[in-house]
Amino acid sequence: MNASDLTNNAKSLLQSIREGNTHILARSISLIENEAPAYSKILEALEGDYPSSIIGITGPPGSGKSTLVDGLVGQWVQQDKKVAVLCVDPSSPFHLGALLGDRIRMSEWYNHPQVFIRSLATRGSLGGLHPKIIEITDLLKAAEFDFIIVETVGVGQSEVEISGLADTTVVVLVPEAGDEIQTMKAGLMEIADIFVVNKCDRPDADRFIKHLQTIFDFNITGEQQEPIIVKTVASERKGLQELAEKILQHRKNINEEQKIVMLAEKAHRLIIQKRVQDIRKNELINKIRKAMLEPGFNIYEFIKRNF
Amino acid sequence: MNASDLTNNAKSLLQSIREGNTHILARSISLIENEAPAYSKILEALEGDYPSSIIGITGPPGSGKSTLVDGLVGQWVQQDKKVAVLCVDPSSPFHLGALLGDRIRMSEWYNHPQVFIRSLATRGSLGGLHPKIIEITDLLKAAEFDFIIVETVGVGQSEVEISGLADTTVVVLVPEAGDEIQTMKAGLMEIADIFVVNKCDRPDADRFIKHLQTIFDFNITGEQQEPIIVKTVASERKGLQELAEKILQHRKNINEEQKIVMLAEKAHRLIIQKRVQDIRKNELINKIRKAMLEPGFNIYEFIKRNF
Repeated sequence: MNASDLTNNAKSLLQSIREGNTHILARSISLIENEAPAYSKILEALEGDYPSSIIGITGPPGSGKSTLVDGLVGQWVQQDKKVAVLCVDPSSPFHLGALLGDRIRMSEWYNHPQVFIRSLATRGSLGGLHPKIIEITDLLKAAEFDFIIVETVGVGQSEVEISGLADTTVVVLVPEAGDEIQTMKAGLMEIADIFVVNKCDRPDADRFIKHLQTIFDFNITGEQQEPIIVKTVASERKGLQELAEKILQHRKNINEEQKIVMLAEKAHRLIIQKRVQDIRKNELINKIRKAMLEPGFNIYEFIKRNF
Repeated sequence: MNASDLTNNAKSLLQSIREGNTHILARSISLIENEAPAYSKILEALEGDYPSSIIGITGPPGSGKSTLVDGLVGQWVQQDKKVAVLCVDPSSPFHLGALLGDRIRMSEWYNHPQVFIRSLATRGSLGGLHPKIIEITDLLKAAEFDFIIVETVGVGQSEVEISGLADTTVVVLVPEAGDEIQTMKAGLMEIADIFVVNKCDRPDADRFIKHLQTIFDFNITGEQQEPIIVKTVASERKGLQELAEKILQHRKNINEEQKIVMLAEKAHRLIIQKRVQDIRKNELINKIRKAMLEPGFNIYEFIKRNF
């Protein structure tokens, strides 16, 4: 097959995806995940942007994210929207025990025609989302999903990446000891566009919310806006409608300039990805092995000379 | 000043640092931190490697890291060793309240001639150590410190980076609810060469340690070795001698091949750093702003063409 055949194939594949062929969509995601030959042709054949909302949902394990996501999907399905859910699963051996239930992500929406659910393993990368998450969400945009939910466990660096990817980042917390929020979840605090306080029927919920607000009052730099806080009991489907509305509202408030900056951020990450891939680790090890034998080996000088 | 003058200056500056001039050492670190003109000349003038041990110490806030570090410094000062401590401080506005005590890092060792203590702010980067941490530790090696301790709060992605930098990574935990270890601190679990269970006089300490061991037994991949666990009560200086010994022992067991791989990892990170710096965000935003106006704008094609 020559390059123009590949491009034509990519175009007809995207046409099928746009028409709702989820089988081909799932296979195309796999092609991208595995960096199959010519996967970049698919991406370069993407045309324009369907105005999907990307919603990042993160929070510590046990905060009820999966139930919340299922509830949100329900809200949007009722409104005849198409919804995709990407569950990013840190595939650390240490998670096997704790997250076994999550790993085979259960959802009542699996077979619904408006819903597409896919788990992505991060494959042992410490923290982080998924090396091809931008590309996969772009493909879901091409498939004309109205909402693309990226659900991730707030561990390691995934929370940093999710805020770079999502139009709206939702951080799910549960009422608990107040000291904890200030410290452990500092990374989560900074990326939240919307806080969900889930399991809000717990007795200390109001105290927790007050505490959450105090933290933001204390932010003397004044850079951060007052956070949007939504109370939910996801298991009883309470607060989900309000959450869906707040997400929509937040998304509407993103202006053109912010969109350009977000696109530049995305490009920035894709460029870094490309440049990092350029460095072959084995080659580097061999080069270093040789260079170390030279008298007066200096790593900065080595890099300046070779890269 | 021409290039050879700069190089000569860098060489005499390094000579002073080697002779123990901590004033010039501190100033040189500032030059590197601020990327002052010609800071790279200092790095390229480094010659050979003094066999310092870099020890990463991380763990959640409140685990008593600072007290533990002070105790370790004491152990090594007794043995006539030179010790440097770098405190990496996530300078998030949300930490102001929680970590105010840590921010002005107190230590009984501040004025000791064998000890050098320096705080580094991460300057709002979400998680992460410090953009110039490799360069700064290399300078401390040139200053012939026997031990370089990098102390960091286990929040965000700093724990990933510390394991790439340190010869030996020590994760400090405190006895607490067992479920927590499996989840919140998953990132920490994977990088530990040595676990310290501090505040080991708490009643549930033994149960906690058993639980910690269980997690590793459960690791069916078998890639990870049995962890070294050291019990301490840092505030009473208990267990510190054992910890110092285990660190030394771990460091001795690193073989030549592992050292080359570690050096390649370091080079890898420095190369990425260099390539990321190459991308000017403002230029990128302007390029994107223009490119978006073209019909059929495609970000993958845009990157392929421009980068």
